[in-house]
Amino acid sequence: MNDVFADRVVTGSEDRLAEMFGGSLGENGIKFSAGNPNSELFPIAQMKQAFNKAIDKSGSQIFEYQTVSGFEKLRERLAQWAGQTADINITADNILVTQGGQQALDLIGKLMLNAGDEIVVEAPTYVGALSAFDQYDPCYYDVEMDDDGINLEQLELVLQAHPNIKLLYTVPDFHNPTGVTLSFRKREKLVELAERYDFFILEDTPYRDLRYKGIKLPAIKSFDRHGRVLYVSSFSKILMPGLRVGWVAADKILIERLRKLKTSSDLETPGIVLAALDQYMENNDLSKHIAEMLPTYRSRLEAMLAVLDKTMPTDVRYTRPEGGFFIWLTLPEVIDAQKLLSEICIPKDRISFVPGKVFYAQRNRKNGMRLNFSGVDEEQIKVGITKLAKSIRSAITANKVGAVL
Amino acid sequence: MNDVFADRVVTGSEDRLAEMFGGSLGENGIKFSAGNPNSELFPIAQMKQAFNKAIDKSGSQIFEYQTVSGFEKLRERLAQWAGQTADINITADNILVTQGGQQALDLIGKLMLNAGDEIVVEAPTYVGALSAFDQYDPCYYDVEMDDDGINLEQLELVLQAHPNIKLLYTVPDFHNPTGVTLSFRKREKLVELAERYDFFILEDTPYRDLRYKGIKLPAIKSFDRHGRVLYVSSFSKILMPGLRVGWVAADKILIERLRKLKTSSDLETPGIVLAALDQYMENNDLSKHIAEMLPTYRSRLEAMLAVLDKTMPTDVRYTRPEGGFFIWLTLPEVIDAQKLLSEICIPKDRISFVPGKVFYAQRNRKNGMRLNFSGVDEEQIKVGITKLAKSIRSAITANKVGAVL
Repeated sequence: MNDVFADRVVTGSEDRLAEMFGGSLGENGIKFSAGNPNSELFPIAQMKQAFNKAIDKSGSQIFEYQTVSGFEKLRERLAQWAGQTADINITADNILVTQGGQQALDLIGKLMLNAGDEIVVEAPTYVGALSAFDQYDPCYYDVEMDDDGINLEQLELVLQAHPNIKLLYTVPDFHNPTGVTLSFRKREKLVELAERYDFFILEDTPYRDLRYKGIKLPAIKSFDRHGRVLYVSSFSKILMPGLRVGWVAADKILIERLRKLKTSSDLETPGIVLAALDQYMENNDLSKHIAEMLPTYRSRLEAMLAVLDKTMPTDVRYTRPEGGFFIWLTLPEVIDAQKLLSEICIPKDRISFVPGKVFYAQRNRKNGMRLNFSGVDEEQIKVGITKLAKSIRSAITANKVGAVL
Repeated sequence: MNDVFADRVVTGSEDRLAEMFGGSLGENGIKFSAGNPNSELFPIAQMKQAFNKAIDKSGSQIFEYQTVSGFEKLRERLAQWAGQTADINITADNILVTQGGQQALDLIGKLMLNAGDEIVVEAPTYVGALSAFDQYDPCYYDVEMDDDGINLEQLELVLQAHPNIKLLYTVPDFHNPTGVTLSFRKREKLVELAERYDFFILEDTPYRDLRYKGIKLPAIKSFDRHGRVLYVSSFSKILMPGLRVGWVAADKILIERLRKLKTSSDLETPGIVLAALDQYMENNDLSKHIAEMLPTYRSRLEAMLAVLDKTMPTDVRYTRPEGGFFIWLTLPEVIDAQKLLSEICIPKDRISFVPGKVFYAQRNRKNGMRLNFSGVDEEQIKVGITKLAKSIRSAITANKVGAVL
């Protein structure tokens, strides 16, 4: 039956996203594998009120067909938000509201990528982006991540070797999966490179406002002078993922094209959801809501770093993020994180993480893992990471005496 | 800047959907161009209650990430609905909930169509489907519409001449744009042809339950023995378009693939919307709601046919639908409906319709127009169609004396 499917389905993509989640952990399992915000922090009462107000205010109109772009008033709020939180100077016309950040990535791939088109991604990078781009069958070039973001020397070598590169995809703030943040200097420099080597930058930054220490940096897009940066953000991490609201900010000519592609893809995002979000932002202070969440996430990050410091063998390295949801842990090269997960951590320890392989476009590295700290409490962190450290230590020892893991 | 875009964007598709809507009509204009249900019939109070119940019942959980398929309980309801309304025997596993019918069409295009792949469409056909398929750059073959649906003799000639045809797209019930319904005999025969000539059928039927006279026919999918039919339906016309909920029913192997494509495209449809729909269906009788809408739509259809019969010149033909939202009107071949619209009907009569060209994959016919009767009241129908008939009559006369329209 395979000949009925398009090539993109057969050869383009395994199910990268589904692969992230291993077997079942049972009731008392500890999940470091999720990418979820803490649902205890959701402003449910306010959101319920917002839905009711949206319906009371607009009546049946809100359940008619709306506009593909998203309401102008909401886009004005987002433009203001982009100015306030990311130093980006845009208007409502520069914005397209999307079905979560994921649809923004899909539409940008649809807009720009022919089969075989060349694109640079970080190694590792966000698996959902690979999953979206895979559909358009591009040619990926990996560039290493340093502690201050993508390695620019290596990037420049890649750009010189491949002058047709069209797009660079980056998660500059509290990177998924590594937690690393791109430095100020590198942000400025990336835009220079985009102009010199004639490519676009897709800046994907759902975690931007979740900074627990250090100083906020301007967005890459704030350095953009010639419309080379497409900025993607989302309400999934700062408010609620179930709303499925994200947005792209870019030059009008790009937004116009993306709007047409969204029309063909799903006509529009449900008006009632956008109207409720608009009401929520009208009647509540989103910045204050975010500020109130930060202490919980900060404590969890600090708790996880403290247990890692205390328990991990010296040949295991890990990042020290200043925000976001994730810490990235690098095992000695001989250890396969996928095997560790499926053979020991899930069945014996009843803990889960995401093995690193899925985050590499080439799937060529096996010794990394992504640990989520936002969705687990401090007790779970203490118990789970201690078990993980013990299992890693055993695996390293076993490996040294010749067993294969 | 065009070289940054993928070929599909540059060459594949003009903005077919946007093109449907002409200039502004002003305040007292009469729109026969829309495809909207009558929003006065929306069950707003019940839907508001459904949103509240969904939030009260699930709390913060409903705003977390959900599942890409849509809740199992909702899919069970849809399977039951498919049995009850279309004689289709399926389970929840055969269903993927989508962001309106439009996303179902997009995902099926994404699943099946490589650039250049061959697909049969009706002439004319639903413009939103062309807009979705255009993204994947297929090769279209047109087959004429008779009064009882697609012309099977012509279809068979096309299938014989092009043995690689993969897919046939059809709107069998109260076809958009013609209003025509595919006969029982042709439904059965289409499935036979799909088996003989080895292609799939995409049965798109959002208007199915809006029948105002005559006897309901089983779905094409009800004749399907070997998984050759993908059945697409939607809540946009029978409940509310702003919910953006549609669904595909197909063999599990196809649903599994479509689910992966949806994950890559937007992760999932907002859980709160699906939970509210589920609550609505739990606490209300959707069949009863539909039955209560029928008299309004039936009266509008009959009113439009009566004015057409009374006012139209004899060389103008039109369909006599038994349901749905649209009547298709065919002008003498020398008249260009687009020009009639933009030069006379919009500026002088302040009425609008959709000129036929956009509904043809090849855009090669100019003398058809789609008239919507569901969104206009009987007085508007009387006034608007009378004006339209007068303008058509003038255009025909002018044309006979040598003016060009």
